Parts: sequence; C-alpha cells; structure tokens
Amino acid sequence: MHLTTYTDYSFRVLMRLALTPDRLTTIAEIAASYGISEHHLMKVVHQLGVAGYIETHRGRGGGLRLAKDATDITVGEIVRCMEPDLGLVACFRAGETCSISSACALSPILGEALDAFLRVLDGRTLDDLISRSRQLRMLLKIEPASPPVPAGRR
Amino acid sequence: MHLTTYTDYSFRVLMRLALTPDRLTTIAEIAASYGISEHHLMKVVHQLGVAGYIETHRGRGGGLRLAKDATDITVGEIVRCMEPDLGLVACFRAGETCSISSACALSPILGEALDAFLRVLDGRTLDDLISRSRQLRMLLKIEPASPPVPAGRR
Repeated sequence: MHLTTYTDYSFRVLMRLALTPDRLTTIAEIAASYGISEHHLMKVVHQLGVAGYIETHRGRGGGLRLAKDATDITVGEIVRCMEPDLGLVACFRAGETCSISSACALSPILGEALDAFLRVLDGRTLDDLISRSRQLRMLLKIEPASPPVPAGRR
Repeated sequence: MHLTTYTDYSFRVLMRLALTPDRLTTIAEIAASYGISEHHLMKVVHQLGVAGYIETHRGRGGGLRLAKDATDITVGEIVRCMEPDLGLVACFRAGETCSISSACALSPILGEALDAFLRVLDGRTLDDLISRSRQLRMLLKIEPASPPVPAGRR
C-alpha cells in the first residue's frame, strides 16, 4: 500500500515553497534541492496550480509560491487532491467487478479504515510538515533571503 | 493508494473457505467461484498456509480449509501478513532516500494515519466479512452440503 510518487512529489514541492513563502522559487531549484528531475515535477506543479495551492509568476525572475498560508492547507486535502485513486481494492473502482461485491463486507470495512486514515491527516497542515524548518532549510540548501537594502543605499 | 491484488485475493480465498468451514474446497473451486485464474491463487494459498491460516489436505478428495475459526482472524492481521509493503512513501522503505527525511514530519504523520487505518481493521474479523453468508453462498454458487445419510440407509 503506497501513495504514488506523484503525491510524494506534491508534498516535496509544497514543503519547499512553504519554507520560503516570501519569495519565488523555480522548478529547477526545487528539483535540485531534492535531486530529482525537473521533468517529473512539471505535471505535479501544473496540477497544484490548477487546484489553487500554488501561483506561478512567468517571465524573467519568475517562479512559484504558495497561494495560501501553509496553516490553511491540510495534509488530508493534499492526499485527496493529488492521489489519483483511493479505491483500496477492485470493488471500490468503477468498471472493476468482483462476483460478491453486492454482499461482501470488505469494502465498507476498508472504507471505514480509509476514513480513519484521512481523519488523522485532516488534523495536520502543511505547516506541521515543516515544523523543523531550520534543519529543512539546511538539508534543502536554501540560501537565507538577502537582507533588505537600507533606504539610503538604494 | 491500493492494496495489492495479492491481498485482495487473500481475502477472497479466506472468505470462500470461511463459508464452508466443515468441508474441503479446492483451488479450482475457489477460482471458478470468483472467475479468476487458478494460477493467480497458487502463491496466495501457499503463503496463507505458511502463515497458518489454512490447512491443505493432499491427494484424491483433498483441498483446503481454514486452520482457525473465522472469528479468530482479524482483517488487520491479514493485511499486515499479506500486503508486501505498507511503506506509504519512499522514506518508509529501506534503500530509498529523500534528502530531507531526517527532519521531515511527513513520515511520522503518515505513520499515525496508517496506525489509525490498521486499528479499524484490527477490530474486525474474517467472520464479519461474511456476515451476509446466505447471499455470499448464492453469489459464489456454493452447493449446500449433502445432508448426513441416516444411519439405517448407510
């Protein structure tokens, strides 16, 4: 029982952006931070944009940032939004058939268990995922933001 | 997020056997009941035997039956025993690495959610799965057991 790599990468993108909410980050920077390919992140980033979690600024100096506060995005909603299929066994899924599905209690029992799983995740936010933000910034080699230039030196 | 077909088939085998605890059932009968291939069930049946859930009687008239009462087998233990990997994301799994796993809170939060999932399943048994046993016997085309021959006619 795995979450897809797609959902895993969604968490990585959102956590990376949550660590620098005040600036734009490029897909190349995210890919380099995790040592994964940019190509794998393109579709993830697109869907996170469509779902309203990130905003994209195009052009020179452009990049991505969170469209919401990290405290307002729950882990449960990310899983529901990004995991392509939460149908644990065949009888959950349209088009698949099992000869006993009309009388079998496995599907409702697994449904209850899935609800319990998601309830835990609904109680946690993206902000909880980055509670060790100082260590995460170091591991992801995120440079500290440049200090604002004093007015007299602009 | 799916359970494997392997786990799905384990439930089907165990439920089929739980419906006829008083007689032996062949792999061919189980396969025919569900319209799936015998070949797919061989490894499942072998592992269920090794794990102590079913016993195999060889030879003419042989077959399988449950080695325990269906009320003594929980749904949670079947999932733990048969699902090859409950590591929801890469950082759960040996040999896979993510650059931030030492400081990331995703893994412990998903671990809590998985515990909640399994806790629900630990509270249900194989016997609960076949609560609608009359309908299940019909759907699986299980013939009623022959009535015992009266002593005088033996």
